[in-house]
Amino acid sequence: MNDGSGLNLFFNPKSIAVIGASARKGTVGYVIVEQLKKKFRGKIYPITPKYPEILGIKTYPSILDVPDEVDLAVIALRATLVPKIMRDIGEKGVRAAIIVSGGFSETGEEGAKLEREVLEIAKKYNIRVIGPNCIGVLDNYSGVDTFFLPEERLKRPPKGHIAIISQSGAMLSMWIDWMALKGMGLSKAISYGNKIDVEDVELLEFLEKDPNTKIILMYIEALKPGKGRKFIEVARRIVSKGKPIIVLKGGRTRKGEKAAASHTGAMAAGYNIYRAAFRQAGIIEVDTMDEMFDIAKAFITLGPARGKRLLILTNAGGEGVIASDFAERYGLDTPEPPEEVKKILREKFPPHVIVKNPLDLTGDTDDERYRIALEELLSRDLYDIVVVITPPHPPSIKGYVIDYIVDAWRKYRVPIIAVVTGGAISEEFAKKIEEKGIPSYQTPERAVRVAAALADYGVFLKQQ
Amino acid sequence: MNDGSGLNLFFNPKSIAVIGASARKGTVGYVIVEQLKKKFRGKIYPITPKYPEILGIKTYPSILDVPDEVDLAVIALRATLVPKIMRDIGEKGVRAAIIVSGGFSETGEEGAKLEREVLEIAKKYNIRVIGPNCIGVLDNYSGVDTFFLPEERLKRPPKGHIAIISQSGAMLSMWIDWMALKGMGLSKAISYGNKIDVEDVELLEFLEKDPNTKIILMYIEALKPGKGRKFIEVARRIVSKGKPIIVLKGGRTRKGEKAAASHTGAMAAGYNIYRAAFRQAGIIEVDTMDEMFDIAKAFITLGPARGKRLLILTNAGGEGVIASDFAERYGLDTPEPPEEVKKILREKFPPHVIVKNPLDLTGDTDDERYRIALEELLSRDLYDIVVVITPPHPPSIKGYVIDYIVDAWRKYRVPIIAVVTGGAISEEFAKKIEEKGIPSYQTPERAVRVAAALADYGVFLKQQ
Repeated sequence: MNDGSGLNLFFNPKSIAVIGASARKGTVGYVIVEQLKKKFRGKIYPITPKYPEILGIKTYPSILDVPDEVDLAVIALRATLVPKIMRDIGEKGVRAAIIVSGGFSETGEEGAKLEREVLEIAKKYNIRVIGPNCIGVLDNYSGVDTFFLPEERLKRPPKGHIAIISQSGAMLSMWIDWMALKGMGLSKAISYGNKIDVEDVELLEFLEKDPNTKIILMYIEALKPGKGRKFIEVARRIVSKGKPIIVLKGGRTRKGEKAAASHTGAMAAGYNIYRAAFRQAGIIEVDTMDEMFDIAKAFITLGPARGKRLLILTNAGGEGVIASDFAERYGLDTPEPPEEVKKILREKFPPHVIVKNPLDLTGDTDDERYRIALEELLSRDLYDIVVVITPPHPPSIKGYVIDYIVDAWRKYRVPIIAVVTGGAISEEFAKKIEEKGIPSYQTPERAVRVAAALADYGVFLKQQ
Repeated sequence: MNDGSGLNLFFNPKSIAVIGASARKGTVGYVIVEQLKKKFRGKIYPITPKYPEILGIKTYPSILDVPDEVDLAVIALRATLVPKIMRDIGEKGVRAAIIVSGGFSETGEEGAKLEREVLEIAKKYNIRVIGPNCIGVLDNYSGVDTFFLPEERLKRPPKGHIAIISQSGAMLSMWIDWMALKGMGLSKAISYGNKIDVEDVELLEFLEKDPNTKIILMYIEALKPGKGRKFIEVARRIVSKGKPIIVLKGGRTRKGEKAAASHTGAMAAGYNIYRAAFRQAGIIEVDTMDEMFDIAKAFITLGPARGKRLLILTNAGGEGVIASDFAERYGLDTPEPPEEVKKILREKFPPHVIVKNPLDLTGDTDDERYRIALEELLSRDLYDIVVVITPPHPPSIKGYVIDYIVDAWRKYRVPIIAVVTGGAISEEFAKKIEEKGIPSYQTPERAVRVAAALADYGVFLKQQ
């Protein structure tokens, strides 16, 4: 059961009971029913003795009164009531519970006692538990949604292929809202709170088999004690099979570790141990949230780079310089083309274009110079990845460059990443190029970071 | 003349001649006349033998035909014609020229020869020169604008207090466009190209005295040889008097230096020398463009922090952890409140709020807890700067928190920086809080970086 397969009831239940359902708009027990009603195609059983129906759905005073089988129970009642409810759902034969209620170990010894009691009951009845003190599960394909904030307050992203596991529920909900704004597609999002049962490794194993998940993002403060070795093994297997895992680690410094200890209670192993584990597993570790979503965006359409040879193509010298600085920082190579290829390019370009890498096509470039550079350089297997800086401002840029970039990417299967710095005209240009599958960033620093992630990932895959 | 005072003709001329003016829409010689006509209140003399008038403005075949005095000449003709023109404007008595034309030392030895000739003529006639091979000057107060891209292609920011000096013209124009999108106000922007005469130090001296400039941004690849000591002296004086200077250095690595050498021709001193110089001058050096504009935004409304004691206030534990990690990275202190103050807060908060720093008000917080925390902690001079993480998603947050933050900032004069992660609702919230003077960022990493800049700046000022 411990290979993630036991988790299917959390994501694809046929029926869900919401225990602590409420008819009071805006409450946790209301919003969960409301969201499920909108999206979940299975049966919904709101459990409450207070209301005969909620949003037109018949309620039951106790889960024991539900006439049919229940696959998943979502518990949103105060902590002291949870042990009794757990026994009830055990008797009912429910095998999966998401306990969103807080008031457990995060509040002190009394809560911790209650938490141990809940865990014992779960074991006795063979109930798998996500939580307590969590926001639970959002599954964009099955419609399971226990995130208990209404969509007016928290947008949900469109269906897509990014899954997120986050140790912080609040942060995860903000990310969800952010992804919705950016139009980034989500498959599943999970936050497990105090994780008395289901934790990171098993969730990874589940996502490994999920056909809708192609990229996995994680926010980790501390893995469950004793899970390190298994985490590396599972993550490495997933990554090797082509699903990138991108991790943001909280608690990397003394101050951060201290804050994490008081946040999730878990004492973290030293950061160096995590770093080594991430590296060993081929996980892409990011420094910031911006990096996380920048890299995730690239993986939606681009595959790994075959190696570390980066071509920087620009019409803005300064951005080429900064891209070079960051290439060095992130360990990318920026070889110049061999002399015979330089000669070919020199013949095709005006004399003031100096053929190096970065290749500065200069401020008066038209779209055509981009086409020539990409064609001559990528057709010769000189580069594994390209950062192309294409400000759309000069009138000599007509916009064909977008097609030239897309054509080169398709023809030579070398990932290409765009930099489009600027305002409204740049955003419009960026949107157009992204619609064709080329991820675009406001700054060369961010684009080169992404290029390095694709290259590191490719190098890792080659070594497997 | 070498204290920047000689530069006034570039920014506040009474009359401008555009040499190489054109009636052909979209050309450099047309756009400059077009922009000046829109914004410049002085006299405009388009110089061209080809058209009797351009945009309704009478032209002259040669500058020598202009009947009145000319303060500034903008030269947009091909390089080989520039020496003759320089002699003409010298004879005419013009004392300032912006040469936007390319084709000089950046193209090789022949161009370099031409450049030396231009410099000799300039010296002979006492003409100050910006350029050649540059985009020149954009002055949002006087209306001087030689940026030669029409506003349909490149927006201009509103009037404001940020000045920019950039070694890269293309990058500067993209930044201008970006600032326009963000609504960030600009005073002046200057890019000097091959800088045969006017360079960074003198421009700084000019901006020092410019009452409209309160923040100075610079992109530097290499200072003019021999200018290092003077640069430190001038920059330090400006910074000490309260105008922050924020620098992005291009060419910080071997790869970057190489790219810079081929971009602007200047061989840079080692990066370590620059770093030391920036530190000595109290300059805020940034790592990325994002950082540059993040910090600039804060300085628009916030002053320096009095010290390095950072309070992190949050309702999202994970963001508090990440903020702590970055506080340590950037050398900020995060002391906990003294026991007696903790006690006061514990009495006012529900028991599950653990009083530490970060102070996690927890997911169920209302606006009121923020008010209490700010009041109790800032009234006691325990902190020099605050990062307040305020996701607007929970229904318990009504929005009063914005006023509470603004009130605390005004009352205790401690800079407060907001983090509002998320989508549409977050952006709306961020806009509201920014309108009241509190800068807001999508992520805690970015906000803490900004906090560190304000703290470093305050500490530098104290040491003066």
